[in-house]
Amino acid sequence: ASMVTAEDFMFKGLNIAGDTSKMLGSNVTQANVMQIPGLNTLGISMVRIDYAAPLGLNPPHTHPRATEILVVIEGTLSVGFITTDNRLFSKTLEKGDVFVFPKGLVHFQQNVGRYNAVAIAALSSQLPGTQQVAMSLFGASPPVDASLLAKAFKIDASLVQRLQREFLA
Amino acid sequence: ASMVTAEDFMFKGLNIAGDTSKMLGSNVTQANVMQIPGLNTLGISMVRIDYAAPLGLNPPHTHPRATEILVVIEGTLSVGFITTDNRLFSKTLEKGDVFVFPKGLVHFQQNVGRYNAVAIAALSSQLPGTQQVAMSLFGASPPVDASLLAKAFKIDASLVQRLQREFLA
Amino acid sequence: ASMVTAEDFMFKGLNIAGDTSKMLGSNVTQANVMQIPGLNTLGISMVRIDYAAPLGLNPPHTHPRATEILVVIEGTLSVGFITTDNRLFSKTLEKGDVFVFPKGLVHFQQNVGRYNAVAIAALSSQLPGTQQVAMSLFGASPPVDASLLAKAFKIDASLVQRLQREFLA
Amino acid sequence: ASMVTAEDFMFKGLNIAGDTSKMLGSNVTQANVMQIPGLNTLGISMVRIDYAAPLGLNPPHTHPRATEILVVIEGTLSVGFITTDNRLFSKTLEKGDVFVFPKGLVHFQQNVGRYNAVAIAALSSQLPGTQQVAMSLFGASPPVDASLLAKAFKIDASLVQRLQREFLA
Amino acid sequence: ASMVTAEDFMFKGLNIAGDTSKMLGSNVTQANVMQIPGLNTLGISMVRIDYAAPLGLNPPHTHPRATEILVVIEGTLSVGFITTDNRLFSKTLEKGDVFVFPKGLVHFQQNVGRYNAVAIAALSSQLPGTQQVAMSLFGASPPVDASLLAKAFKIDASLVQRLQREFLA
Amino acid sequence: ASMVTAEDFMFKGLNIAGDTSKMLGSNVTQANVMQIPGLNTLGISMVRIDYAAPLGLNPPHTHPRATEILVVIEGTLSVGFITTDNRLFSKTLEKGDVFVFPKGLVHFQQNVGRYNAVAIAALSSQLPGTQQVAMSLFGASPPVDASLLAKAFKIDASLVQRLQREFLA
Repeated sequence: ASMVTAEDFMFKGLNIAGDTSKMLGSNVTQANVMQIPGLNTLGISMVRIDYAAPLGLNPPHTHPRATEILVVIEGTLSVGFITTDNRLFSKTLEKGDVFVFPKGLVHFQQNVGRYNAVAIAALSSQLPGTQQVAMSLFGASPPVDASLLAKAFKIDASLVQRLQREFLA
Repeated sequence: ASMVTAEDFMFKGLNIAGDTSKMLGSNVTQANVMQIPGLNTLGISMVRIDYAAPLGLNPPHTHPRATEILVVIEGTLSVGFITTDNRLFSKTLEKGDVFVFPKGLVHFQQNVGRYNAVAIAALSSQLPGTQQVAMSLFGASPPVDASLLAKAFKIDASLVQRLQREFLA
Repeated sequence: ASMVTAEDFMFKGLNIAGDTSKMLGSNVTQANVMQIPGLNTLGISMVRIDYAAPLGLNPPHTHPRATEILVVIEGTLSVGFITTDNRLFSKTLEKGDVFVFPKGLVHFQQNVGRYNAVAIAALSSQLPGTQQVAMSLFGASPPVDASLLAKAFKIDASLVQRLQREFLA
Repeated sequence: ASMVTAEDFMFKGLNIAGDTSKMLGSNVTQANVMQIPGLNTLGISMVRIDYAAPLGLNPPHTHPRATEILVVIEGTLSVGFITTDNRLFSKTLEKGDVFVFPKGLVHFQQNVGRYNAVAIAALSSQLPGTQQVAMSLFGASPPVDASLLAKAFKIDASLVQRLQREFLA
Repeated sequence: ASMVTAEDFMFKGLNIAGDTSKMLGSNVTQANVMQIPGLNTLGISMVRIDYAAPLGLNPPHTHPRATEILVVIEGTLSVGFITTDNRLFSKTLEKGDVFVFPKGLVHFQQNVGRYNAVAIAALSSQLPGTQQVAMSLFGASPPVDASLLAKAFKIDASLVQRLQREFLA
Repeated sequence: ASMVTAEDFMFKGLNIAGDTSKMLGSNVTQANVMQIPGLNTLGISMVRIDYAAPLGLNPPHTHPRATEILVVIEGTLSVGFITTDNRLFSKTLEKGDVFVFPKGLVHFQQNVGRYNAVAIAALSSQLPGTQQVAMSLFGASPPVDASLLAKAFKIDASLVQRLQREFLA
């Protein structure tokens, strides 16, 4: 059996800015049990999120197994979550402000300042998972039936198919 | 202090078909702690779902606090959920078939048979909550910023605004 | 490592009536983590219970690790559970009625209608376990000491021994 | 608001032998959240069990919400529990021996020594509950249907009725 | 696969007094999942604690994963725990008295009677762990930085170094 | 009943440096359920910790109900925790490095850089509690018996009394 050491409780990966050139101008760097074996069974993990200026977006997503608490390290973010009765709870956060996204609810953050922004967030699971709403629905593999999505989103099936091509690209 | 009785553990509301004329041709009737006080702290609840023919849809949604296990009572359903790595797990279910939607993941069911369909589903929470993806994003009140949604869904802001009008109608 | 697929979340075994000719005129068909690997750690499972007419009985039993919520699909059932202060909470259920049996308490259902009955029940564990009270005490292997059971049930040891022969047969 | 003090974490009631003249020659003295307010939410409690000689019996029962771990303080006990596949796990315990009764399973202890016996047991809940099997079935109020019990226990309904009179006396 | 038997739920190790000649005049004998495999996942364990007279001490320590409930079997103990706002909750316990040490808080017991004392305690975890405060800080391997400890305890670094030599001896 | 709003999920208090002139050159600013009502039942919270240069110390302490995950925002910290078998797991952390302190274990952080340091940490409870080891033992009110502490720490009772005066000052 291998010996547990201090290395199993440390991670150096949050010290540099993530690459925000892909996606929608944001990047999430994970520090969960996949990176830190010592987190196993301990029910917590951390991420660093970078948001390019202007308008870098961490798009609407859920964490199926965790609540998130986020603090802004640099910059200005517009953040929000939507409740199960379709109320939007949103705020603009400056450096040092904290916001909570309750377990499983759709939420997002967007850089609304003039400079790059950085946040640190913690999640109440050692492996919280992330499901981006648009990507999961329009970029699933195999694809979700286009007419089903058309009906759910009240859009044409042809638009659904265009979106599916874009999200799968 | 009021006395607990057998009434607190019973509910008669799942015995009739829900009204599927609204929404997208489906209806969910709840049997959770709001209807059955005895469920408090017990970590389970039930629903009846009716799906009109043809193509009644229980649109993509999540339960932020529960796993769901569903059995088809009448009819034929196409069901699916999407994993956190954007894989679609889907099946066509006939009467008596069972399917599981893991905690917090986006999932859906649609009537793909010739007649009305009925399912019974149980959820691993006495108050699981439901968040319909399209409604929560396009029908939130106050509205989510249209340009944010446009970016997330790769569509025009004008389309977002049209959808917001429709979902809020 | 083997790949998880949609098959791991589906089960076809609840679509046919169980064989109620054995036991006491009832049959329980399981849909738990032994049949559905995807249920692992998800804290929920399902069963179909068939009750022959007349008077098919799912005899007094407990689920050591789960609350049960039951809905009648066909027929008429008399159901009940007994509280820790020896109160009987019971009801007669018709099609579509729901009843809850709290975690670990002795409970039962009996067909009191003219036709076969069917129920779907869900349990708050992926492996809830079932302990039939009479069978566990009189049919245990090796047998529970007969004089102990005689004292507990206020009956003669000779009757205990006869019961033990019957339950072990 | 009232002030929490050390009194809320102490209980003096386990220092004297319980009255074993009633019941079946045993007595359980509780030390749970009803006696010790400080136990609230802490998930543990304790009992003292006295067993008269000869053959004082703590009859077959379950704790719906807890595992029990028991140590013999004085005397000799025959103890056992029955698994969900109807296997009896039993042992004779001397002073200082420890035995575990897993969550929700039917179990019992009987004094098989020449002198009075005493045990200390702890349970994995601040309010574990106790359900005596024979009393709950034959002594329930209102009574469980006699023909149902007759069928479940493979005995005559007339014997059930005699037992119901005795258990309710 | 090996067969589970009654042996997996029994332990004979609490029947004799522990050796109190080492340490500070006390000895803890464990009955957790390491000794009793059947305790796995069941969330409870037990210990016997012996305290020599006079003044045998179970020094200030924590259980990182469990609440403790203790009953005095023989003798007289002074017991206490300290709250997170630095209040000492303490009591003198005689034979049969019960006291609770909430999860994770520093606590201790000392024999303040004329004879040896014995306690039985249960903990709300199958593997609660124990951290002795003085030993963990002054006897850690490798040693905690002496100047850090000097600052934390408001003592000279030279005294810290003497203590470190003693605790590591 | 009062309406829940976005305010209940936000906190502005982590945006300024805490006052490190008291204590040992460090300051912890809390963002738990006392500051953020929306965290109730969600099992997570956050803190900002400031460490003055040189050698600002967050002295050895435990969180009785939580694991902690910490990231360095500015500066250089020496951090460590001690296991239940008295092993010290320690590391020097630079900006962006992450370290985990498992639930209930004694741990500390000290500024070992030339400038002030700042960390953000999250804890796996909405109200994790903090117990400083030295303060809880030597600064408790009423005081812990001096001879008990002398024995536990292998120091003179007169030194204990001097420490008690200092910690209570």
